[in-house]
Amino acid sequence: MKKMKALHFDGQKMTFRTDYNNPKSGEALVEVNLAGICGTDIEILNGYMSYQGIPGHEFVGVVKESQNKDLIGKRVVGEINVGCGICESCKKGLERHCPYRTVLGILRRDGAFAQFLSLPEKNLHVIPDQINDEQAVFVEPLAAAFEIKEQINLKKESNIAIVGDGRLAQLVALVLNLSCQNITCFGRHKNKLELLKNLGIKTKIGIEPDDNQKFDLVVEATGSNSGFENTMKLIKPRGIVILKSTLASKKNIDLTPMVINEVTVVGSRCGPFRPAIHALASGMISVDNLIDSTYSLEKFQDAFEHAKKPGTLKILLKP
Amino acid sequence: MKKMKALHFDGQKMTFRTDYNNPKSGEALVEVNLAGICGTDIEILNGYMSYQGIPGHEFVGVVKESQNKDLIGKRVVGEINVGCGICESCKKGLERHCPYRTVLGILRRDGAFAQFLSLPEKNLHVIPDQINDEQAVFVEPLAAAFEIKEQINLKKESNIAIVGDGRLAQLVALVLNLSCQNITCFGRHKNKLELLKNLGIKTKIGIEPDDNQKFDLVVEATGSNSGFENTMKLIKPRGIVILKSTLASKKNIDLTPMVINEVTVVGSRCGPFRPAIHALASGMISVDNLIDSTYSLEKFQDAFEHAKKPGTLKILLKP
Repeated sequence: MKKMKALHFDGQKMTFRTDYNNPKSGEALVEVNLAGICGTDIEILNGYMSYQGIPGHEFVGVVKESQNKDLIGKRVVGEINVGCGICESCKKGLERHCPYRTVLGILRRDGAFAQFLSLPEKNLHVIPDQINDEQAVFVEPLAAAFEIKEQINLKKESNIAIVGDGRLAQLVALVLNLSCQNITCFGRHKNKLELLKNLGIKTKIGIEPDDNQKFDLVVEATGSNSGFENTMKLIKPRGIVILKSTLASKKNIDLTPMVINEVTVVGSRCGPFRPAIHALASGMISVDNLIDSTYSLEKFQDAFEHAKKPGTLKILLKP
Repeated sequence: MKKMKALHFDGQKMTFRTDYNNPKSGEALVEVNLAGICGTDIEILNGYMSYQGIPGHEFVGVVKESQNKDLIGKRVVGEINVGCGICESCKKGLERHCPYRTVLGILRRDGAFAQFLSLPEKNLHVIPDQINDEQAVFVEPLAAAFEIKEQINLKKESNIAIVGDGRLAQLVALVLNLSCQNITCFGRHKNKLELLKNLGIKTKIGIEPDDNQKFDLVVEATGSNSGFENTMKLIKPRGIVILKSTLASKKNIDLTPMVINEVTVVGSRCGPFRPAIHALASGMISVDNLIDSTYSLEKFQDAFEHAKKPGTLKILLKP
């Protein structure tokens, strides 16, 4: 069996390996050009999902082997959930909610921080030439931001708040900015808020009394409990909150305002790839300002240190 | 100024008083026939809402004074939220979400555990003769259960779970049973589950592995963190959860399954009185089995002790 370079997490720590077995056959084999470090990857190193294996789920690569000959040599990105194919969810096309699913780099399936990965052919999307590798890595997280548009009916004039200014918040802002004209982002980092300001989005550091219960829709994109608390302050009675990332702590979460103000909270995870690819290919959305640095796999420790620093946006890994 | 009998909570303890000032004029004056003890009243005695004054918000009474002469002598129940009348919420008819509102027996407005209470005329609903006093006390909590029908689109064949078997769960079950034929109630008390079984509702003590992610809609009606945890186990990916009561504790609330399974959680509070009155008057819904005992105001300590006992349904107070 062929061997490859990969980052491996054993549940305790991550190591760079050069002798990792190539992914098993039966699926498309993809040579990874570039992979992105996501907040979830950092959480995984802290024990999230009790994952062991190769992390990484944001990637672009080239198909090297496939039963579909048309795919070979094509540049692709991939949907990360692989369903069982026979359960009720899978039959409805909701493989991403299959209870028996594997998830690339997150759940019982080796991920993208490696020279090669494998995925079923149906998970792959060919990337047009207009999208370069650096941009293509953003398809997966951008799709997650597009999920909001699948879940709720956005109105142009809605008063929208985004809580957070990090990677996820930036992508959410880019997507909502396509349909809505009244967006305020509550963040902490001047450099990140500056990027949003350039899009015509209002930015604020800290909530003022006037902001309380002012917004029809609030997207929580910090994953912190203080972010959730602020979200509950900002949302109007009967408003809609999108919970875009899992909260790191279970302590001190007050759901009382949710009941009293009859707020609807919508959990939101992975999303549709097609609109994300279309938005990047057409230039409707640009992610070029969101990349901080690219590291080799070998330099993963520097890469993760950098990714964890406040103020950092996207860090890429090149196998 | 006239004096009346009332229960008064000073923020520390509740006392029976015979020298309480009658409610101020300018609103309809209602002589209370009967009032109900709700979970919220018990929470208020534990410090909820930092309320001080006369508690009680479920009542039926007779109008004694009013600027609307047609109302005088009429038997009424009353909506408990009194808005400012001029804010954005009030203008939309959502007085119950007015940020400056008072709430009968809950927020800056003396309540129903007294001989008299006052409310604006527009808050009152005349009760038809088919509904006796014991039944009429249930209009307010039954309206809160009807709120679910206002908030989501119930389907006849939906697989529905109710978590809890107490007062609130019973009323929710009665309402959902009007439109849905596939309801399972997860409770703890045999006597309460028996009432639901008589309605044709499936009942279970404890969740079995088979129940996980089985339900399209789950109503949390326990107000306990374990109830919330069970709710998150029962709900299908992309399902809808109704949060019908505030959780007593902020500790150990895990919202992760909400994001991963893209669950929508809808906070639900007070509801529309008209369908509740109609359901009681027409006999579509019967609450006669839900009353345990009636106590005089003087015997409030016995009444609250009884209401707190596991297995108890509704306890009424007669001024």
